[in-house]
Amino acid sequence: MSDLRQALKDNAEAVNKMMDSLIPKADGGQGKLFEAMRYAATSGGKRMRPFLVVQSTGLFGLTHQTALRTAAAVEFIHAYSLVHDDLPAMDNSYLRRGKPTTHVQYGEAVAILVGDALLTLAFEVINDFDTHPDPVVRANLVTALAQAAGARGMVGGQMLDIQSSGNELSMAEIVRLQRLKTGELFSFCCEAGAILAKTPGRARQSLSSYAHDLGLAFQITDDLLDAAGSTAETGKSVRQDAENNKPNFVTLLGVERAKSQAQILAQQAVSHLDQFDSRADLLRELAQYAVDRKF
Amino acid sequence: MSDLRQALKDNAEAVNKMMDSLIPKADGGQGKLFEAMRYAATSGGKRMRPFLVVQSTGLFGLTHQTALRTAAAVEFIHAYSLVHDDLPAMDNSYLRRGKPTTHVQYGEAVAILVGDALLTLAFEVINDFDTHPDPVVRANLVTALAQAAGARGMVGGQMLDIQSSGNELSMAEIVRLQRLKTGELFSFCCEAGAILAKTPGRARQSLSSYAHDLGLAFQITDDLLDAAGSTAETGKSVRQDAENNKPNFVTLLGVERAKSQAQILAQQAVSHLDQFDSRADLLRELAQYAVDRKF
Repeated sequence: MSDLRQALKDNAEAVNKMMDSLIPKADGGQGKLFEAMRYAATSGGKRMRPFLVVQSTGLFGLTHQTALRTAAAVEFIHAYSLVHDDLPAMDNSYLRRGKPTTHVQYGEAVAILVGDALLTLAFEVINDFDTHPDPVVRANLVTALAQAAGARGMVGGQMLDIQSSGNELSMAEIVRLQRLKTGELFSFCCEAGAILAKTPGRARQSLSSYAHDLGLAFQITDDLLDAAGSTAETGKSVRQDAENNKPNFVTLLGVERAKSQAQILAQQAVSHLDQFDSRADLLRELAQYAVDRKF
Repeated sequence: MSDLRQALKDNAEAVNKMMDSLIPKADGGQGKLFEAMRYAATSGGKRMRPFLVVQSTGLFGLTHQTALRTAAAVEFIHAYSLVHDDLPAMDNSYLRRGKPTTHVQYGEAVAILVGDALLTLAFEVINDFDTHPDPVVRANLVTALAQAAGARGMVGGQMLDIQSSGNELSMAEIVRLQRLKTGELFSFCCEAGAILAKTPGRARQSLSSYAHDLGLAFQITDDLLDAAGSTAETGKSVRQDAENNKPNFVTLLGVERAKSQAQILAQQAVSHLDQFDSRADLLRELAQYAVDRKF
């Protein structure tokens, strides 16, 4: 196993453990809610966003606890967005990370509440003293997360996404859609270290640029896997975009051009890390992994 | 018009204006999302929770801006919870505040996103420097709001609520359900002044007790109106609990005992305000209004 794969695996275990500790334990009537939150947040998944947070904080020598709590908060946001996106009224997906989606497992009403609860928990966790002792830093973090996740970020991207069904989108429009839908939260993850270390300026800007290119490379590869992959390999429903008549990078560029675009973005992402020493090596490897992965 | 009714009306106008200013303006593809957020948050409604926030902050001499921004954040939380609760998979309500519910007006997918976006916006607003200059105060506020709104608060109460359909609940269970579903956010509203003024201890405890009794009095009256009222009077779908076979205070106590219980709670709520001067008079009036209102 390569260093990166081992690091991703170790990171996923550590983040899952942290998330598990942050979700309330079974307690009377809400026990089912907590159980469903745990199901949605801690099962399967590459934990890519938490990995970015942990690598980013590693560049600035922040504590393990700060890194993992911030990473867990971001994954709660990501998990809530998946639960709501999978709902029948949205993508109507029945399989996620090789398991039934939350609404298939627990019912639609519970899935809606699970998403709401995970979203709220993310802000509770990130705002807590245990994440960072300086309230100014935490306030900056809450603001950045809210902007990345909200109507001008991820939720806005979802809105563009559901409106895109059946429409022809230009390359610029699809880039903007993905920038909002996944790019803003990717940027938050990569910038988290700089925010937590109170290091604005060039370092944060470089990480933001890295995140931008990495996010697009990831998305194009996701679209390639969706078009070509099998459910057995990816562990989630495939050919969703074609079925839902949604434009994406592959429908727009074709397979070959999409592949070469992803490679260019991966190289470009790495070039933004020039100012960082070997502590950024896993981020460099990750950019290549983003486009080479098979699931 | 009584002082209280005038004050409620003035407050609703001020809070609506603040909410409108905090929701992004139309902008490309997300314009529809912003429009739907505005529809869900700013149309109709008594603005009871914002009123409690403004009255609570008035006891401690906080600025108008602090009061209204905190009030708007709470109303965003309340509005999001209504949008999600009204969804077909939850209460399946088609009418709210005399108008079609958000999913009826904009579709289910948009309604899910509207709720997510309003919830996220609440934390962005309350965490902002403009709400309070002291980051420690804001951090305390974010924590209190997240706890009141999340899995151990409002969302947990919703979970108990959807599980209650068709079950017999004891008085203790139904009180717990309401405590979580509406009481925790009511408490946050009433305690907001004490949190913002950094005045813990007896004042905050008294406001918490007031909120507890007021919240129950409100809920019992809501149940009475649901059982007896007409859609024309209340502006929302009525007899929902009976249709959905949900136990509530009226199904449990009967109309007469529910009425007398609400009166007792209103008096008890007022008694918790003894330590405050005439600045708490509108809160005192509100407790009586809570049980006397016809909608």
